[in-house]
Amino acid sequence: MTRALVLTVIGAGDAPEDACAMARDVGREIASRGAVLINGGRGGVMRAAAEGARSAGGHTIGILPSYDRASANEFVEFVIATGMGEARNAIIVASSDAVIAMAGEGGTLAEIGFAKKFGRPIVALKSWPEIEGLDRATTPREAVDLAMKLAACSRG
Amino acid sequence: MTRALVLTVIGAGDAPEDACAMARDVGREIASRGAVLINGGRGGVMRAAAEGARSAGGHTIGILPSYDRASANEFVEFVIATGMGEARNAIIVASSDAVIAMAGEGGTLAEIGFAKKFGRPIVALKSWPEIEGLDRATTPREAVDLAMKLAACSRG
Amino acid sequence: MTRALVLTVIGAGDAPEDACAMARDVGREIASRGAVLINGGRGGVMRAAAEGARSAGGHTIGILPSYDRASANEFVEFVIATGMGEARNAIIVASSDAVIAMAGEGGTLAEIGFAKKFGRPIVALKSWPEIEGLDRATTPREAVDLAMKLAACSRG
Amino acid sequence: MTRALVLTVIGAGDAPEDACAMARDVGREIASRGAVLINGGRGGVMRAAAEGARSAGGHTIGILPSYDRASANEFVEFVIATGMGEARNAIIVASSDAVIAMAGEGGTLAEIGFAKKFGRPIVALKSWPEIEGLDRATTPREAVDLAMKLAACSRG
Repeated sequence: MTRALVLTVIGAGDAPEDACAMARDVGREIASRGAVLINGGRGGVMRAAAEGARSAGGHTIGILPSYDRASANEFVEFVIATGMGEARNAIIVASSDAVIAMAGEGGTLAEIGFAKKFGRPIVALKSWPEIEGLDRATTPREAVDLAMKLAACSRG
Repeated sequence: MTRALVLTVIGAGDAPEDACAMARDVGREIASRGAVLINGGRGGVMRAAAEGARSAGGHTIGILPSYDRASANEFVEFVIATGMGEARNAIIVASSDAVIAMAGEGGTLAEIGFAKKFGRPIVALKSWPEIEGLDRATTPREAVDLAMKLAACSRG
Repeated sequence: MTRALVLTVIGAGDAPEDACAMARDVGREIASRGAVLINGGRGGVMRAAAEGARSAGGHTIGILPSYDRASANEFVEFVIATGMGEARNAIIVASSDAVIAMAGEGGTLAEIGFAKKFGRPIVALKSWPEIEGLDRATTPREAVDLAMKLAACSRG
Repeated sequence: MTRALVLTVIGAGDAPEDACAMARDVGREIASRGAVLINGGRGGVMRAAAEGARSAGGHTIGILPSYDRASANEFVEFVIATGMGEARNAIIVASSDAVIAMAGEGGTLAEIGFAKKFGRPIVALKSWPEIEGLDRATTPREAVDLAMKLAACSRG
């Protein structure tokens, strides 16, 4: 069995509507290419990306910080209740083939740090200009195209 | 969206063939009832249960101890690379609605301990007579029937 | 630098007073032999063992399940806030040279499971008759003597 | 018991000698003020900071990524073997009252992200100009003075 590529979209858990709209588009693009979406399973960018992916028939996995499976948003198909708090960010990144980073705060920065550590390709979507060494995109479609290409290379 | 029930089958990573045959049957029964199989994603009972579940068209999730996604067995559909070692047993149990326990050693005992801690129903399949307070079954079908019933109750 | 031996005492977080008295004695015996006490840092057996160890001038480390350092009992000298929930039991055991097990429930059982998995010597103090392969003791002094001896062997 | 303040020094695991010399000075300053040093317990900046702290009679705690306690550097007094890989960075930060950040790569960036997430004061010592919202220092003494002051405020 060849496994589908797995992408994560990271960003603020309390994002404004325009960011959520962009995240929904990213999720839809991911699913429409047959890739799986994995992320933190909560609100904001996480919820919107999962909504987009489900709307296009894709699989979604939510890696929760708590043991409370009911805290997953409704668009998470498979709930992983880590109970390990913010350290679950390392699991999200390690389980992905590539990372699409939107604007966010400390948690998002930690995920970018882990992606660098683990050697995962990172595509910054209109965000994180201050961090060196990221690939850049300005639209959801461009971000997912690039992330898919880099993910395929990286998996070999 | 109502999520499918999630069951885990725990047991030895280097189980003999008769144990693996039983695990395959358990996996098949789980999938045939529409439930998702989650477990540790490695060999022995984990591999056999996933093989059975996939053969019946079910979804399988493997929660690996390492960051090495290539260490997942071929029947794991969704690979979660925790990198958190044996502590990943807590995640497996916390992400399940019920546990089916086969014979095993320290890792399996730790999972039974977590299931008690988290209040997850545990069905011992021809194993663990020395541990009090477990439900008991003698065939894969009986174990899965009982686990599904208890899981549905427990989720409410 | 040769590091001091590290022992853990595991048992119920809501233990009755006679169990706590026994745990205090165990903690005192550990410290009086120059060993470090590590455990879960909360109440019951954990608190009592730490109290005993501090009363004899020993070092105590508490590995908390949450990020809330204020939840450590007052006898924890060094607080490690794991935020990783019950999975922190694996860290406690992995960081110890030997385990002294008193009566307990699911969490304690998980720790015994991890100790078997990690090959750490386990001394059951008037408890866990149903688990095979543990060493046995009937008094705190006997338990600590045996645990220290096994720990020293095991570290080599 | 009032617990001593706990500081962490983060930076590259394979730092050049001038960075290590600076980390040693930071460790010494931390210990000379009675604070405890906690960090990742491996090489480079981690080892040098621990060496400095021990040389001034301070306590040092090493939070290892693996289960291999022998991988701790010789200046770690208390070894915590998490076995949880890079996710252990969250534990280091959560267990600290303040963070002193030196130059580093992905792992260090993840720790800065967690410190922001957890609301821990961060003092950047001649490093990370691209990250907003950090306090700044140019010498080890200045960094430790500032970190101690912010840590005391933060703990209340």
